[in-house]
Amino acid sequence: MKKILRINMDDLTFNEERVKSEYEYLGGRALTSQIIKDEVDPACHPLGKHNKVVIAPGLLTGTTAPCSGRLSIGSKSPLTGTIKEANSGGTASQKLAKLGYKAIIIEGAPLRSGLYVIKIDSDGVEIIEADGLKGMGTYQTAKNLRDKYGNDYSVICIGPAGEEKLSAASIAVTNIEGETSRHAARGGLGAVLGSKGIKAIIVNNGKQDKQDIISYKDEKGFKKLATDFAKKLVETKKVLTEYGTANLVEIINSLKGLPTRNFSVGQFEGAEKISGEVLRKRAIERKGRTGHPCQPGCVIRCSNVYKDEKGNFLTSGFEYETIILTGANCGIDDLDTIAKIDKFCDDFGIDTIDTGAAIGVLMESGLIEFGDREGVLNLLEEIRKLTPLGRIIGSGAEITGKIFGVTRVPTVKGQAVSAYDPRVFKGTGVTYATSPMGADHTAGNCLPGRGGYREETKDASKIKHYEGDKIQVALSSDLQVMATVCDSLGFCYFVGATLENMNIFAELVNKRYGLSITGKDMIKLGQKTLEIEREFNKAAGITEVQDRLPEFFREEKLEPSGNVFDVNENEIKKVFDFS
Amino acid sequence: MKKILRINMDDLTFNEERVKSEYEYLGGRALTSQIIKDEVDPACHPLGKHNKVVIAPGLLTGTTAPCSGRLSIGSKSPLTGTIKEANSGGTASQKLAKLGYKAIIIEGAPLRSGLYVIKIDSDGVEIIEADGLKGMGTYQTAKNLRDKYGNDYSVICIGPAGEEKLSAASIAVTNIEGETSRHAARGGLGAVLGSKGIKAIIVNNGKQDKQDIISYKDEKGFKKLATDFAKKLVETKKVLTEYGTANLVEIINSLKGLPTRNFSVGQFEGAEKISGEVLRKRAIERKGRTGHPCQPGCVIRCSNVYKDEKGNFLTSGFEYETIILTGANCGIDDLDTIAKIDKFCDDFGIDTIDTGAAIGVLMESGLIEFGDREGVLNLLEEIRKLTPLGRIIGSGAEITGKIFGVTRVPTVKGQAVSAYDPRVFKGTGVTYATSPMGADHTAGNCLPGRGGYREETKDASKIKHYEGDKIQVALSSDLQVMATVCDSLGFCYFVGATLENMNIFAELVNKRYGLSITGKDMIKLGQKTLEIEREFNKAAGITEVQDRLPEFFREEKLEPSGNVFDVNENEIKKVFDFS
Repeated sequence: MKKILRINMDDLTFNEERVKSEYEYLGGRALTSQIIKDEVDPACHPLGKHNKVVIAPGLLTGTTAPCSGRLSIGSKSPLTGTIKEANSGGTASQKLAKLGYKAIIIEGAPLRSGLYVIKIDSDGVEIIEADGLKGMGTYQTAKNLRDKYGNDYSVICIGPAGEEKLSAASIAVTNIEGETSRHAARGGLGAVLGSKGIKAIIVNNGKQDKQDIISYKDEKGFKKLATDFAKKLVETKKVLTEYGTANLVEIINSLKGLPTRNFSVGQFEGAEKISGEVLRKRAIERKGRTGHPCQPGCVIRCSNVYKDEKGNFLTSGFEYETIILTGANCGIDDLDTIAKIDKFCDDFGIDTIDTGAAIGVLMESGLIEFGDREGVLNLLEEIRKLTPLGRIIGSGAEITGKIFGVTRVPTVKGQAVSAYDPRVFKGTGVTYATSPMGADHTAGNCLPGRGGYREETKDASKIKHYEGDKIQVALSSDLQVMATVCDSLGFCYFVGATLENMNIFAELVNKRYGLSITGKDMIKLGQKTLEIEREFNKAAGITEVQDRLPEFFREEKLEPSGNVFDVNENEIKKVFDFS
Repeated sequence: MKKILRINMDDLTFNEERVKSEYEYLGGRALTSQIIKDEVDPACHPLGKHNKVVIAPGLLTGTTAPCSGRLSIGSKSPLTGTIKEANSGGTASQKLAKLGYKAIIIEGAPLRSGLYVIKIDSDGVEIIEADGLKGMGTYQTAKNLRDKYGNDYSVICIGPAGEEKLSAASIAVTNIEGETSRHAARGGLGAVLGSKGIKAIIVNNGKQDKQDIISYKDEKGFKKLATDFAKKLVETKKVLTEYGTANLVEIINSLKGLPTRNFSVGQFEGAEKISGEVLRKRAIERKGRTGHPCQPGCVIRCSNVYKDEKGNFLTSGFEYETIILTGANCGIDDLDTIAKIDKFCDDFGIDTIDTGAAIGVLMESGLIEFGDREGVLNLLEEIRKLTPLGRIIGSGAEITGKIFGVTRVPTVKGQAVSAYDPRVFKGTGVTYATSPMGADHTAGNCLPGRGGYREETKDASKIKHYEGDKIQVALSSDLQVMATVCDSLGFCYFVGATLENMNIFAELVNKRYGLSITGKDMIKLGQKTLEIEREFNKAAGITEVQDRLPEFFREEKLEPSGNVFDVNENEIKKVFDFS
């Protein structure tokens, strides 16, 4: 895997470059962030021709390492103004890796306002005019392209939101079945792709698969280690396999940190109705699926297929964060309604988290009532029709708050906080506040039971998720670093951002590349990537002043715990002191 | 003038404080910025309870110095996120000064969501519930309050835009006739007042006038100097008296820097139709006025009264920037239509500059055509009805661009550039880029004929407004400093931010306060205020990275001059190197 594909949308040309030696052992987020840092003017307009989109498989993507096929997409974000990496499951990343691509760099912007499809396969690369796809949802887009070019193609595409450059636009990636249910959802990267005139990138490694582009220095050793690791995951991640991420609904609710009605309380009276139990029951009853993998080689299989009462497909990968932000956070306790919202967002190509947060803010403004299911479905129609109100919502929670004069807006650096109230999950609050990506739980989610790599964070059982300043900052720091490592290797977050795994990851890298690095080196890679990201942000005008939560989290008690977010600000400033 | 009135909207109380010695010789912008810096957490939410509004007459306001009655209003801006001072003509400032108030500080936010009027007169201060004024335009608000309390009251008030916390909301101040045609328009300060629940502040110095609160160490000397200065202004500012600021339409058009159709060209084919000549002709024909003062003691009298064809009042103080931003910039060449837009903005309480820029951006998005008069009047209806589209426009050009996916958005730090294209007026471009207030021509407008205070800028005839890096930066720096001095003393910008005037101002201050400062000290005061503002901004997370124009000004040639904004970025960084 030694090629970088550079696509210039100014003149619709491309070329393949040898990978610089500095990039050789970088992948995923480490690589996208490094390239964005090296090539993009931090002060550029995120939707202008100077921004770039970098798409990169992880360093271990394409290998037999389980759950290692995430696709990283990096850019300067139109939502946050920061550097951004969002990653997605689905099948495209493994195919890119197997075609020998370490990254795709998309730059420039076409003169004409049409749309293009980039076709990448073993025959090479083609940039194809595709104006006919204009305004098409992601599901239909993927279907059209796969009908035309073949079902062996994975599709990376945007919906109308991305074409319209809405700041909460996502980038969809097809799953095994060819559904656009997996998304690099956060930070508005779909708008950047839209600004380049790219509707879709389709990837098929076809014949190349047999050519052993994925090579190993110690193949036997690698595969043994990968198999052992997979076994361990199968054993320890059963809850995810059975209930999906929705298993968290009742847990987070019982811990009193479930965002409800625009983060005004921490427990939702309707939690049981939208729980993992109910989801699983309905998935089975309605002949959907549980334990559904989003990509080959996933042994956790946290995805599921959720159908409506009549057995029609609604969504796949019906996630906890979607359920809470568009459900509890809007006072909605009906899983079918929430699944419809999810389906819409996936199809239109917008982030469910920022959309749910935006609707919660609108509800707070009084435009519609909390719990008004019909009202929310009407709002989705506004988005679909791209009315001014729809465009506001599609631009995310922060702008929605500004336009409707709401001050209780749960965002950091312009991006919505996720489904863990930071007044209860204080380490996660530190992550929201400080992640170079804006508020993002996947950047380092400090849930109970999670430990870090340093002495004081190693023993998770000694950490209370709502107590202590230094410990919350330390744990957030450790988890942010280790999450960055996962994002860089292509590993799904659910394999675990743990110290134990850092050592396993290092061994896998060694056996693949003939290196002799350690878990500590993995940690250093994560730290370095975070530093690069923060350097970019600083040059983009984002400083540690922006590393804070909205004031209402510090000032309004969250009932029933009565907690506020009270982690000491000076301690928070030390979160990236790695020396 | 030794009192500060502090109003706490948390509990609807107030108290009067002695002025700290550090504040004794500060007024206007120097004082509002110092108090905001001293008392407001730079990271606070601009519309939350931690922000404050400071209202201050200038250091010479209330004296016989001509044109010295500007009212400064300072806060953290919801539009720019920076510290903000916007000042206004009208009669309120002189009355506050004559009541002995050096500043009003408004803090906190009321628990209930109603509206209040603050009544300030020689009987004291009263905080009055005024829910009945909800949704009322500024004209009617002022009329109601003056009908009720007497025509001796000046009114400082917000319109529906401020109540709704729209980011482009202005604060209106009544003129001599009691019309709310004067505005502290920029930076959304109306929204901050709205967030405090304050609909209006009414001021009457009545009896106090006779008590000689305005005292002078050397009254005779002061009045002689003031009279001489007034005479000079009368002689040298005749064009402003006769044609108002609209005299600039043809000048700026002939210099090829007139913002036209969202800053896409620098000359407007309809310029003649919206010129100062036409304005003057119609004002006279329709029995409006020219040479109209906005406050007692104004000898320049650049204001005017503009009526419709039937002789009904439309607007007063029909300004060049309004005419260009809502006219040429929207492709509109009909002065009557533009006057209606101005009237609407004044009444609804929104900034004409950001509103015009927002409409220009919407036109660029294709929502309506450039030049579509009916379309613009329909947009005003959207604003009036507070529809989502209306709220977007009322939130300013930057957000409008984001929501409609437009990248050619003429803003700096979130605030719209004014009626001087920075590709032609490059020093003004430096001011737009670097002013701590966001893009603002009044912060230091480098038009031909204006010189600075340093050796290389003293001779204005040697400076070309479109040539040289160092000279543009030096001139912008000098004019920003001297504009800050004007803003601090209460002087209208039109008296001239010149070195000669700095010396006159120093003499006036000396004769009033018994000091012995020089023009150089005045300059130091301006520099210090700018430094204080930049310190606040830095702590608010706004750094010199934000000190730049949108990229299209550097990359798109402005026809017919073919100019781009090309002032060297490293030179621009030196603009505030005062040492």
